[in-house]
Amino acid sequence: MSESRIQNAALRGKIVSADEAAAFIHPGDNVGVSGFTGSGHPKEVPQALARRIAAATGRGESFRVGVWTGASTAPELDGVLFGVNGGSMRLPYQSDPECRKRINSGDAWYIDAHLSHVAQNAAWGHYGKLDVALIEVVGILEDGRLVPSTSVGNNPTWLELADRVILEVNSGLNAKLEGMHDIYTVALPPHRQAIPIARADDRIGDPYLRVDLDKVVAVVETDCPDRDTKFSEPDENSRRIAGHILEFLQYEVKKGRIPANLLPLQSGVGNVANAVMAGLNDGPYENLTAYTEVLQDGMLDMIRSGKLVYASSTAVSLSKEALADFNANLDIYRKRIILRPQEISNHPEIARRLGVISMNGMLEADIYGNVNSTHVLGSKMMNGIGGSGDFARNAYLSIFMTPSLAKNGALSCVVPMVSHVDHTEHDVQVLVTEHGLADLRGLAPRQRAKLVIEKCADPKFRPALADYLARAEKGANGQQTPHLLGEAYDWHLRALRGESM
Amino acid sequence: MSESRIQNAALRGKIVSADEAAAFIHPGDNVGVSGFTGSGHPKEVPQALARRIAAATGRGESFRVGVWTGASTAPELDGVLFGVNGGSMRLPYQSDPECRKRINSGDAWYIDAHLSHVAQNAAWGHYGKLDVALIEVVGILEDGRLVPSTSVGNNPTWLELADRVILEVNSGLNAKLEGMHDIYTVALPPHRQAIPIARADDRIGDPYLRVDLDKVVAVVETDCPDRDTKFSEPDENSRRIAGHILEFLQYEVKKGRIPANLLPLQSGVGNVANAVMAGLNDGPYENLTAYTEVLQDGMLDMIRSGKLVYASSTAVSLSKEALADFNANLDIYRKRIILRPQEISNHPEIARRLGVISMNGMLEADIYGNVNSTHVLGSKMMNGIGGSGDFARNAYLSIFMTPSLAKNGALSCVVPMVSHVDHTEHDVQVLVTEHGLADLRGLAPRQRAKLVIEKCADPKFRPALADYLARAEKGANGQQTPHLLGEAYDWHLRALRGESM
Repeated sequence: MSESRIQNAALRGKIVSADEAAAFIHPGDNVGVSGFTGSGHPKEVPQALARRIAAATGRGESFRVGVWTGASTAPELDGVLFGVNGGSMRLPYQSDPECRKRINSGDAWYIDAHLSHVAQNAAWGHYGKLDVALIEVVGILEDGRLVPSTSVGNNPTWLELADRVILEVNSGLNAKLEGMHDIYTVALPPHRQAIPIARADDRIGDPYLRVDLDKVVAVVETDCPDRDTKFSEPDENSRRIAGHILEFLQYEVKKGRIPANLLPLQSGVGNVANAVMAGLNDGPYENLTAYTEVLQDGMLDMIRSGKLVYASSTAVSLSKEALADFNANLDIYRKRIILRPQEISNHPEIARRLGVISMNGMLEADIYGNVNSTHVLGSKMMNGIGGSGDFARNAYLSIFMTPSLAKNGALSCVVPMVSHVDHTEHDVQVLVTEHGLADLRGLAPRQRAKLVIEKCADPKFRPALADYLARAEKGANGQQTPHLLGEAYDWHLRALRGESM
Repeated sequence: MSESRIQNAALRGKIVSADEAAAFIHPGDNVGVSGFTGSGHPKEVPQALARRIAAATGRGESFRVGVWTGASTAPELDGVLFGVNGGSMRLPYQSDPECRKRINSGDAWYIDAHLSHVAQNAAWGHYGKLDVALIEVVGILEDGRLVPSTSVGNNPTWLELADRVILEVNSGLNAKLEGMHDIYTVALPPHRQAIPIARADDRIGDPYLRVDLDKVVAVVETDCPDRDTKFSEPDENSRRIAGHILEFLQYEVKKGRIPANLLPLQSGVGNVANAVMAGLNDGPYENLTAYTEVLQDGMLDMIRSGKLVYASSTAVSLSKEALADFNANLDIYRKRIILRPQEISNHPEIARRLGVISMNGMLEADIYGNVNSTHVLGSKMMNGIGGSGDFARNAYLSIFMTPSLAKNGALSCVVPMVSHVDHTEHDVQVLVTEHGLADLRGLAPRQRAKLVIEKCADPKFRPALADYLARAEKGANGQQTPHLLGEAYDWHLRALRGESM
């Protein structure tokens, strides 16, 4: 495939095997890797690197690297590297079982960060020196410009900052992705200007990544699909949550606050998000748009049906079935989808300007509207905050949603006090479970508490929550946010003992 | 004074006494009042309203209103209204003893909100209907345009939304304020455009407020100064905190991350902020700028000395002494100060574009870098989050500072777990006390914890904090953010019992 996918002669001269490329990565390096939600990550060099690391470890040598990505990747990257304990540090988001295990065992440091903050923090040097960029592309033009893969993530930043660049050119992904991307770089202060996006479909950059060709130390040819992103049909709870949200959006339109085609949608991943998209696809809305970080099956369905006229994202992450459709109709989808760097897809400036409708999952919410998106029972990392903060703080509507119960009903996802706060009471407008939707806008904390208990908590936990609130209102040192600090975490402590909350 | 200050004939015809004006405010009304940090609030109508409320209450009638402002006001507004329990609801920030008392007794609802969010939330109707706007101005032009007072706050929004408008024209404030303001209105989505500010001194609007003259029901002439904002000389702790910050800024310049004239400064209020400004005024920097929400004595000193070439703010809040200088040299200060609506002074879009250096006080921080700005021991409201979140999340540098001890050394301001979270670990980059500065950028939670304990905690609390961390690392269910939920609030519980933490 070399000639058609790798048109630059100099880079063709640098084609090596994955093992040879991995030899350019040294112990202690920080490696900026492409990849966002299982799409666009390098497929072979990380596995070769994991083999090198395992071999070194076998010889009693220490070989670990810092792993910087866009967001979550896949078993052939996080899985293999953290499987051999080869990652000393990870940022800014992950969802891999092996990686999660190392984080929670204390083997790996994890910097859980707002996805829109990562590029600038790296450029300022807050994460240290970036030694290597390891980036998947789908092609290289004659002049050396790069055709990005199925995600853009932080790739422009990694390519800019790294001393050495390794490119994986993946012929297993469609070359027709060319033209779908919009690469735009934000200057650092004091040289920043307004980002000229006023609609989700505004193109402001150009479709290619650029790299100093002299920095490229290796080019590896691959032929692998992205990680399959599992799509499961929405279950009953998800459909109910979606139903509450759809009803609420109709109310907002009726109140005249948002136009009949709503405002640009931002949707997290998973079963509930799928259900909301399916509901919108069957609903009364036309000419919808999206300004989001990852485009999944649900939004692709909506583009195909014509309901969604445009989607801006930083990644396309699809199931096997959706991918087949995507590839077959890429000439159409390329006109409807725009893939941006995650600094832009998640930029607070744009999220607020557009007034996105932000819908994200959570682990638990408390009665006052604080949300925990990341930590199981206060200490254990699940995945990370991802882009939820970028969007929620700046959204027209910040919606957080979850089924009301977890662990077969033993745990309540509505608690007296969350065990970790990722989104404060100031940033959470709407909470939704299968039981109902609590519109917290314009309410003081105790007003919120009554509504959250009544609308969102499972009936079996409502009396205990109401009892906590009532006793806190009697016993606390102030009535703004009454808490009984001596028992605020009794629910979590019961869960830690394996009991029902 | 009527003719010179109130040039519009129709509005001259509406001049009434404060008592007559207050009669336009009815029980149950929501009143949008001018005022930000004790400047630019109406001086007489609120007192007349408080008298009406007291009289009604004396007759056994209920008379309460919702009080919406820019930020904190003064005794002659919050003090008198909440003193007679006349405020049913208050937003978005306060610092008045009477108002605080009603909030914490449960008499008044309090919506503690990001200051940049208020105008749009009000426009969307999230706070209900705005019945009356009660706005202080320093003059009215012949065509009815209004010369704003010493703060702009949410005045453009209140004037737009209210059914009835009452103007206080204060000849006690300098008419030469005319021209200092820059009024710019942000459209609601989907019609929003980029806000064209690329430097702190960019003027993008015009100097006057506009109002539908038919809505003006009363004009009241007043002659009163703003609230004196007390300025106390920095104490030893404040000077030490300032010293750590100044040293750190020099480090940032030396690293080449920020220019020699730094980036625009944002500073909260109080003793520590004063000390930082005094330090900057004596320091090596030239051509500094500020993009902040309130300009106080410290920044005025810096403008006078020539160190600060430009300051953007929404309010000027000065001590009696500084005010005399301000008034005497207003022709100069008008060229150096620009007063904007708080939606613009605090806008995330601009804070991030400019890369502000954000310095704000706090009540307590925990070892992992979460910050409580608002709630004493978890339940009791102190003042509110104000603009700290607008700036911190979007800043180049988000610095939170406090002396390490409170209550004569009984309380530690560094605790195992904060009792309320206003700024999450994702948004707090630097913590400072008199003992030192913890640069948390690019660190994972347990790395932060070691640094916060070592640099920021008072030595007498360090062993107990280190012991908590060590036991949590052994006992928690995950190593990302080890906590012992059963004792995370033991420190606060001891404080609630009147013991040392």
